[in-house]
Amino acid sequence: MVIKYKLIKESNECMARLGVVTTPHGSFETPIFMPVGTQGTVKTMTREELEEIGSNIILGNTYHLWNQPGNDIIKKAGGLHKFMNWPHSILTDSGGFQVFSLAELRNIKEEGVTFKHHKSGAPLFLTPEKSIKIQNDLGSDIMMAFDECPPYPSSYDYMKKSVERTTRWAKRCLDANKNIDTQGMFGIVQGGEYRDLRELSAKALVKMDFDGYSIGGLSVGEPKHIQNEVLSYTTLMLPKDKPRYLMGVGSPGAILDAVERGVDMFDCVLPTRIARHGTAMTSVGRIIIKNKIFSEDFSPLDPKCDCYCCKNYTKSYLRHLIQANEILGYRLLSIHNIAFLTNLMSEIREAIKEDRFLDYKEKVYKNYGLDSNEKDF
Amino acid sequence: MVIKYKLIKESNECMARLGVVTTPHGSFETPIFMPVGTQGTVKTMTREELEEIGSNIILGNTYHLWNQPGNDIIKKAGGLHKFMNWPHSILTDSGGFQVFSLAELRNIKEEGVTFKHHKSGAPLFLTPEKSIKIQNDLGSDIMMAFDECPPYPSSYDYMKKSVERTTRWAKRCLDANKNIDTQGMFGIVQGGEYRDLRELSAKALVKMDFDGYSIGGLSVGEPKHIQNEVLSYTTLMLPKDKPRYLMGVGSPGAILDAVERGVDMFDCVLPTRIARHGTAMTSVGRIIIKNKIFSEDFSPLDPKCDCYCCKNYTKSYLRHLIQANEILGYRLLSIHNIAFLTNLMSEIREAIKEDRFLDYKEKVYKNYGLDSNEKDF
Repeated sequence: MVIKYKLIKESNECMARLGVVTTPHGSFETPIFMPVGTQGTVKTMTREELEEIGSNIILGNTYHLWNQPGNDIIKKAGGLHKFMNWPHSILTDSGGFQVFSLAELRNIKEEGVTFKHHKSGAPLFLTPEKSIKIQNDLGSDIMMAFDECPPYPSSYDYMKKSVERTTRWAKRCLDANKNIDTQGMFGIVQGGEYRDLRELSAKALVKMDFDGYSIGGLSVGEPKHIQNEVLSYTTLMLPKDKPRYLMGVGSPGAILDAVERGVDMFDCVLPTRIARHGTAMTSVGRIIIKNKIFSEDFSPLDPKCDCYCCKNYTKSYLRHLIQANEILGYRLLSIHNIAFLTNLMSEIREAIKEDRFLDYKEKVYKNYGLDSNEKDF
Repeated sequence: MVIKYKLIKESNECMARLGVVTTPHGSFETPIFMPVGTQGTVKTMTREELEEIGSNIILGNTYHLWNQPGNDIIKKAGGLHKFMNWPHSILTDSGGFQVFSLAELRNIKEEGVTFKHHKSGAPLFLTPEKSIKIQNDLGSDIMMAFDECPPYPSSYDYMKKSVERTTRWAKRCLDANKNIDTQGMFGIVQGGEYRDLRELSAKALVKMDFDGYSIGGLSVGEPKHIQNEVLSYTTLMLPKDKPRYLMGVGSPGAILDAVERGVDMFDCVLPTRIARHGTAMTSVGRIIIKNKIFSEDFSPLDPKCDCYCCKNYTKSYLRHLIQANEILGYRLLSIHNIAFLTNLMSEIREAIKEDRFLDYKEKVYKNYGLDSNEKDF
């Protein structure tokens, strides 16, 4: 295996677990949150800022980098690590999610998917082989198999056909990998809210012996209790000696729920996206910094946070920057939000280690103002 | 004097001079370029990034900060230094330039100027006393007197009346300063291209004994040879033991021309503004990074530059960032452009020290692709 997972400890209280993942570009402890660098940059941030926060794996997006600047250019640059000046681990998605979320017109066949570029409308064609070729050119440490991500809700019959095709595509992805010594690959378990289809998907993928497994098709509009239910039984279908990854989840409540159910890895654009809208995640919940109440508040964004933003700037100044549409405002809130989630994961690991995860989770839910029965946001 | 100027050396070749300016927040060598932080932030940049480049004085804009977030809030924060986390020197303009460049409707009377907000259209009224009150609230090291900046060309008769009023306003500004021990003030010499009016203005202001003098009313559309001519005779009207400041000038050619004529201080939004349009100033001239020619150029923006951008990123990556509208692209080009001008000033000082300024100037003009007879850009 190119990607190594070492299980350090299982919680006494729930399915939460501690581990260490090692890739060709370094190791990191799990559970972990991975910032998203869609276009070869975690929006607004430099490598050094991510390093200071303690991020040691980021995401790149196959769909976006394929279209701009093009995987050929990134390959010529020596791969995505060199192109973007990031010497630590990189995970790339397969493009599948974008095909199914951004493109309005698409035509799914056994060979692959025909669709239109989300901006230009230019015709595009993506196959398992093409996705892996692009990811080989990018040179990521962890590649994702190319899958179909059906919407919620989908009929049982459609989901079954889709899972079967995604399974065949998974095999084609493994076969297409030209860099088996340097790039690992995760399979993606699909099946919607149908337990037997999740089982069907998981069994077939586990047999193919991927480096790790993602639980796909969640966070696509289903209620929170369904997401949690699917996670509860799907992680049990996955081997204990491989990392488990829940794609597209980055809200504190959903992360805590998934860690409780045995998930190790998370990614989401949430922290940088809400930063650009002037929203911060803090130890007492979300703060919308534009609110007038902060105009003369000269305290830090989150007194419990030790990030660059909280150490050096006040809410009053941050409010002014966002009001005035200043880039430094987006920078500072992005730094803080990524640091907030990174610190959350660090505290989660500490709590698992000391067998007080459920207690910790309850405390965060309460302090953050989350309702445990509903979508947290 | 709150602001101290020490003349270190006068060039043997021209009117260029070396000096050291000391403010309540530190010292800097002149000739110097001062980055502009219009809204309490040098666009895209942190304090640490400016410090790494070697900037030790920046500008703040009275007009903008008065309107957003308001000088009352900045005063409550402990002044602009504390509000924006900048412990080094700050110079604030008087708001005069914005009144005359941004506002379409204005009514100039002896008391002050009535005009409309450049976005909301709300009625505003600015007087010499009000400008100094705002600048006192901001707590800048160097304040500028409130002046009228007439357009080019203006008739002799209008300019004469304007200069006389600006002179009366200058006196009112000095009288209005509540912080004479901690905040210095520069007077602004006006008079357009009329030598006797420059003389009239300079004589009156010099008699008032300001901490330094700005040459105003230039870079407002007049041909380059007129700007140079006005500078040549106006600096001779100013005392040798005070700093001289040319407002709004930041192109390499215009800076070199003005240094040759005895100017010490410069500011301009140019480096950060063109960065946001994807343009870099380099040792071989301007580079428009979006050009296709750079798509596979894996060399640094400027091989002769040692800034963070040039040490860590390639033209190919920078092009991608700007093409993809990524904030990191604007950040990196802003860092580079400010570093370019800061390094230019450092080389200028070295050349003056070694009495080879004219030779250095000719070399930069040639390498940068400037035509010495025309506007440089």
